[in-house]
Amino acid sequence: MPKHDSSRPPGATFSTYRYRVPFFDTDAMGVVHHANYIRYLELARIVWLDEHDLPYHRIAGQGIHYATTRVELDYHYSARFDDRIDISVWLDWVRGASLCMAYELRCGDVVVASGHTVHAAVDTTGRVRRLPKDRLANLRPLALRPAPKP
Amino acid sequence: MPKHDSSRPPGATFSTYRYRVPFFDTDAMGVVHHANYIRYLELARIVWLDEHDLPYHRIAGQGIHYATTRVELDYHYSARFDDRIDISVWLDWVRGASLCMAYELRCGDVVVASGHTVHAAVDTTGRVRRLPKDRLANLRPLALRPAPKP
Amino acid sequence: MPKHDSSRPPGATFSTYRYRVPFFDTDAMGVVHHANYIRYLELARIVWLDEHDLPYHRIAGQGIHYATTRVELDYHYSARFDDRIDISVWLDWVRGASLCMAYELRCGDVVVASGHTVHAAVDTTGRVRRLPKDRLANLRPLALRPAPKP
Amino acid sequence: MPKHDSSRPPGATFSTYRYRVPFFDTDAMGVVHHANYIRYLELARIVWLDEHDLPYHRIAGQGIHYATTRVELDYHYSARFDDRIDISVWLDWVRGASLCMAYELRCGDVVVASGHTVHAAVDTTGRVRRLPKDRLANLRPLALRPAPKP
Repeated sequence: MPKHDSSRPPGATFSTYRYRVPFFDTDAMGVVHHANYIRYLELARIVWLDEHDLPYHRIAGQGIHYATTRVELDYHYSARFDDRIDISVWLDWVRGASLCMAYELRCGDVVVASGHTVHAAVDTTGRVRRLPKDRLANLRPLALRPAPKP
Repeated sequence: MPKHDSSRPPGATFSTYRYRVPFFDTDAMGVVHHANYIRYLELARIVWLDEHDLPYHRIAGQGIHYATTRVELDYHYSARFDDRIDISVWLDWVRGASLCMAYELRCGDVVVASGHTVHAAVDTTGRVRRLPKDRLANLRPLALRPAPKP
Repeated sequence: MPKHDSSRPPGATFSTYRYRVPFFDTDAMGVVHHANYIRYLELARIVWLDEHDLPYHRIAGQGIHYATTRVELDYHYSARFDDRIDISVWLDWVRGASLCMAYELRCGDVVVASGHTVHAAVDTTGRVRRLPKDRLANLRPLALRPAPKP
Repeated sequence: MPKHDSSRPPGATFSTYRYRVPFFDTDAMGVVHHANYIRYLELARIVWLDEHDLPYHRIAGQGIHYATTRVELDYHYSARFDDRIDISVWLDWVRGASLCMAYELRCGDVVVASGHTVHAAVDTTGRVRRLPKDRLANLRPLALRPAPKP
């Protein structure tokens, strides 16, 4: 298979979660079904919040949820049952009420997938809310780049 | 493949939901992954409530949920991508705060799976609650057999 | 909630699949978990192939699979249990060995999500293959626009 | 919540897999959807094969799969997002072409669920096959009890 160059940028604040592919994630082509990778992104995001911001159950405990508003993922290689996927995640940018996470998934040296998710801070009724000041103060220095114009 | 005799009892109040197997339900053996069938039971149960009792969103709107307390399912045949599965469901028994649904899943003449689920009525905090009187009054005549001793 | 303008372009060849949101697709925020929408796209894509090209099991029967190489989806509104989502899909462009499908998901008048998926034709070993001539001949007139430069 | 006595029998050969509940496993009642637990059983089963028999990818590499023929699971307590579930599994019995695994799932001291799965050895076409001699020789001493009459 052709190697795909890594998109992991120097200077980003990473977390990496290792996931062992279960049989129930595979499909009749013998590979991981593409929709499952979207879930893998969440697994790594949760670890990033643990390690670099605030565990998500504590954010949720303050009445704030991160609603996903955009997903984009490019698939470069098909992982299979029992593969170990290393899902790396970093904060791409943050705004007053939203943030963007970036991802690279690898099996050993092979880049399996790469992409981004955007999240809006919402309250328990789903209304967009400004991120709490202490969250913004912590997140801003961790972002890889300035937020693009909305 | 060997035929498995139908377990659909005469006298039960049935609903049947036809499900077209999506690719994402298959696994690397080329068949529907066994855990997905548990979800198929729920799809049929929702239709049964529509047709014979009260739509679930209205039951939930009264603050009652049916928490699943037991699942048992026997698998007789492996369905594949694009198969049409007819999931038949009926009320096996009902008690003051719980009920048992029975299921038979078929592809055409072939019995794919059969089983039962038991559900307890709970409030929004998860505490077991007696079924509302009007629910019990409606459900009791629909049950196939008396509830077994607890 | 704010209305989001429809992105359904005039002149496209549509299929629409109506999906009733099951309870198992919701999450603890009370809404459909965002990863599940990626599966909804597949449900509609299968119907589009039925209606406008060749049923997928027949394409697969010729030893061709459509491997997903890119997913992008914008979420505009949160669907809930028992909502009916109309998933519209059309062929955006086609190339010699790949194609792009576009989607709009609505609950009634409300646009729930919109996006694209890109697929590469692969053989059963996962190697990229040119689309069979008769597939290309059928698909090209259905595409909404010329394929972008690779 | 009421404590449920452990069903872990003395003398069994256990493996235990710790699972951190992801947000995507929860449903709109705020708890893990019951169908997901069936997947958790598989995660622990894979670890048991690693630790006590042969990794499943190697069994599958010999052309043998373990098709699930029965699932039964009792739910005692509702796990939530970010809970850690310890899934213990042991070999209940083994026959010439099938075996039964038993499970207990706990969050700390609380028994969350308990149950059994039965699996038939099948070849890649899905036909039941006798277990290879070396598998039987290894598994028989690990079984907790003699196989029940078929």
